[in-house]
Amino acid sequence: MQRIAVIPGSFDPVTLGHLDVIGRTCHLFDETHVLVVHNPAKSAMLPFADRVRLLEESIEEAGLNEVAASGGGKIVVASWSVGLLVDYVTEVGAQVLVKGIRSSNDVTYETPMAIVNRNLAGVETMMIVTDPAHTHVSSSLVRQVASLAGDVSPYVPPAVARFLK
Amino acid sequence: MQRIAVIPGSFDPVTLGHLDVIGRTCHLFDETHVLVVHNPAKSAMLPFADRVRLLEESIEEAGLNEVAASGGGKIVVASWSVGLLVDYVTEVGAQVLVKGIRSSNDVTYETPMAIVNRNLAGVETMMIVTDPAHTHVSSSLVRQVASLAGDVSPYVPPAVARFLK
Amino acid sequence: MQRIAVIPGSFDPVTLGHLDVIGRTCHLFDETHVLVVHNPAKSAMLPFADRVRLLEESIEEAGLNEVAASGGGKIVVASWSVGLLVDYVTEVGAQVLVKGIRSSNDVTYETPMAIVNRNLAGVETMMIVTDPAHTHVSSSLVRQVASLAGDVSPYVPPAVARFLK
Amino acid sequence: MQRIAVIPGSFDPVTLGHLDVIGRTCHLFDETHVLVVHNPAKSAMLPFADRVRLLEESIEEAGLNEVAASGGGKIVVASWSVGLLVDYVTEVGAQVLVKGIRSSNDVTYETPMAIVNRNLAGVETMMIVTDPAHTHVSSSLVRQVASLAGDVSPYVPPAVARFLK
Amino acid sequence: MQRIAVIPGSFDPVTLGHLDVIGRTCHLFDETHVLVVHNPAKSAMLPFADRVRLLEESIEEAGLNEVAASGGGKIVVASWSVGLLVDYVTEVGAQVLVKGIRSSNDVTYETPMAIVNRNLAGVETMMIVTDPAHTHVSSSLVRQVASLAGDVSPYVPPAVARFLK
Amino acid sequence: MQRIAVIPGSFDPVTLGHLDVIGRTCHLFDETHVLVVHNPAKSAMLPFADRVRLLEESIEEAGLNEVAASGGGKIVVASWSVGLLVDYVTEVGAQVLVKGIRSSNDVTYETPMAIVNRNLAGVETMMIVTDPAHTHVSSSLVRQVASLAGDVSPYVPPAVARFLK
Repeated sequence: MQRIAVIPGSFDPVTLGHLDVIGRTCHLFDETHVLVVHNPAKSAMLPFADRVRLLEESIEEAGLNEVAASGGGKIVVASWSVGLLVDYVTEVGAQVLVKGIRSSNDVTYETPMAIVNRNLAGVETMMIVTDPAHTHVSSSLVRQVASLAGDVSPYVPPAVARFLK
Repeated sequence: MQRIAVIPGSFDPVTLGHLDVIGRTCHLFDETHVLVVHNPAKSAMLPFADRVRLLEESIEEAGLNEVAASGGGKIVVASWSVGLLVDYVTEVGAQVLVKGIRSSNDVTYETPMAIVNRNLAGVETMMIVTDPAHTHVSSSLVRQVASLAGDVSPYVPPAVARFLK
Repeated sequence: MQRIAVIPGSFDPVTLGHLDVIGRTCHLFDETHVLVVHNPAKSAMLPFADRVRLLEESIEEAGLNEVAASGGGKIVVASWSVGLLVDYVTEVGAQVLVKGIRSSNDVTYETPMAIVNRNLAGVETMMIVTDPAHTHVSSSLVRQVASLAGDVSPYVPPAVARFLK
Repeated sequence: MQRIAVIPGSFDPVTLGHLDVIGRTCHLFDETHVLVVHNPAKSAMLPFADRVRLLEESIEEAGLNEVAASGGGKIVVASWSVGLLVDYVTEVGAQVLVKGIRSSNDVTYETPMAIVNRNLAGVETMMIVTDPAHTHVSSSLVRQVASLAGDVSPYVPPAVARFLK
Repeated sequence: MQRIAVIPGSFDPVTLGHLDVIGRTCHLFDETHVLVVHNPAKSAMLPFADRVRLLEESIEEAGLNEVAASGGGKIVVASWSVGLLVDYVTEVGAQVLVKGIRSSNDVTYETPMAIVNRNLAGVETMMIVTDPAHTHVSSSLVRQVASLAGDVSPYVPPAVARFLK
Repeated sequence: MQRIAVIPGSFDPVTLGHLDVIGRTCHLFDETHVLVVHNPAKSAMLPFADRVRLLEESIEEAGLNEVAASGGGKIVVASWSVGLLVDYVTEVGAQVLVKGIRSSNDVTYETPMAIVNRNLAGVETMMIVTDPAHTHVSSSLVRQVASLAGDVSPYVPPAVARFLK
């Protein structure tokens, strides 16, 4: 039986924290789908297509495809812009959503979603603690620092740092 | 590649919350080891051997072996009383520890352990949110109600309720 | 002396969590006023009048008027769209505000309001823990699932589920 | 119908925070029972009988009986040393437990108990936020300061300060 | 060596909680800069210039300049509307940012900023617990009460109360 | 005026997290006293004298005396085994206690102490966020790993690692 996990997110932009979660998940499953989700309720800094492309580039540059292969797995980057997240999960036959968590606040935020996604489609959510070095890194922090012309390179992969310049 | 998860705990005694976590994990991996860990720093209500036996009986009675099989997996009940948890994990070739979490406090408690276990043996910890119906159930609550001769049957599997009477 | 409690909220829409809190409060006081409050700072999904009507219908269908009567109490549905909440409380001679809480985050949010309302009008706020089965249910979650055409029936009373279809 | 509330605690010793909660509860119900509960699992600083007596004296000196009377209520000081708290609640026909909360941590601690007490005896638990001036005051803090011969008078009623000297 | 601290904020408007933090910080450093920061992402209730002026007036009326002098320090009120906060810190040669915290939620919010500011400019952030009497007071609460024509005088300095009338 | 800070702790044993807090504080004050406090209510793993000595050695080896000097400050290692912490603070004329915090839970724990210490002796407490790389490190974690013969070297200074072997 194929073990398939989905890591959903806005990735606006992808951060070192995201890459950390992808890297620690991708060798645990046969397929790890990293899914850029369009949230109509939030206005994004980066266009949807750029977010997908920067995610692909960053995974490639960070050597995560090799990490996945070392555990007999592979990474699939995909995007989803219409309907419920669980529709994608069902379509690709995944059993698990994986979410990186940085603080207990993230858990309070993710828990209702986890329960709803289980109700809607029987999919489980597993939370994985991000590396302490990235605990403070979030896309919104990157957007804030970038909007004030501060240096974002300690928080994002090189591809994103280049793009934001 | 075999996907193996370990769910460690004191199981003093096993609760409906534990069974819920086991049931939702066991069909996601090829093997799910439920591991009764001896913690020399805590005095237990139930003898170690009884905890293991009640866990086995409860998994059987709850039909969780069938749940595991439905996902191509199986459940192994084991115990560990000497040394570090990660030594067991390494010995059986597991890649993941799974912990049920009920509140953000549980996460604050589990996070340092998760990081240490990753440092010590490269093992990841995944947290799974317990069913809301069991959010308030803990072994310590069961021990407290039992010590006051209250009815514990809403919180534990039938095998444990029978044993505690 | 009449014991009167007020349960304020946006009820956009009323959820099973709200009904749970109303049901567990209404038999403890002589009168329980469920008050739909207009918050000019938030844009609502449902028109104010519909929120009031769906609340009345849901309380009726759930048999909560009978629950109130069993404790010698009654439920009053009302609405308030101008000025401070405590003005309503004073007007009807209530002594207590009752708020359902689902997590410690809710408490952090409600505490400053509770203190301000005590300062402004001497009214106390009592918090009641929602049933664990509804811990994850919130109006905002219902609005989110509804906006993506997901099934909201596990979270709302039948009257709301019919209306949202 | 008589509205009866119970405020349980160890009161080892009673603090200004406790008196604040009693004062704000006692005029909301027909009877407010302040119940000194013996917890066999905790070793106490003060003998059980002293805790009861200091509680009675402090309520008297703080004029809380008058506060209760102003709302048509009265305060009953009682003690309970055998069995479950809910047995007392049932015996006196109370409908509600009232707990003072100082922080979101208190809520995380009280929530499982609240649910268990509802399961065991249908009694509801209402939480009331302590006055911010007493947020940091706890019996354990008083015991700690007292054990180091520090001045506890800012945290306890005069009767307790006299006794601890 | 000059010990210089910066207390940044929106001060929209300055509250008694802010004054409390300023008063407890200003005698600990040789200079304490209270910095009104313009946040382009938030729309403010009061014009920038009024916020600065009310802050100066309130510090004067509360006698905080004398408090600072008692510890060999002085207070500087300043404003910053372009670029990163740390640019101001570097410009005036400050070593520390001081933030008042009211709850553990404030800490969760301030922590990523603290780490980013250390990364960007080597500046440390120290958090100081506000007086319990002001734990519930925030500018957003003041704005909310003011928008409903409630009495804000228990939460703000007299200069602000006069201005808001 | 001399700016003096005290960093109190059990240091049982000193960790990399402690050194991080000392290093980031010592250049901000004229004197930084690192104070090993004897807590009669807790049984320690290491004898009091060893804790003091390992702290001195670790500060020396980590070059923190030079860090202090770079800001015109110096580090004093001291110990305190009788009476209240604030007695030491008063004796040496310090104005501030500094505490490292790793999570919002630490803040909930430290806040009552901070208020009591202010009440008792007018001393302020400032909290400084530990480096994210050490967020999970605590003395109790080190004691736990050491008791199971695990490798503690990623969490403690070399002097402690040598000693624990």
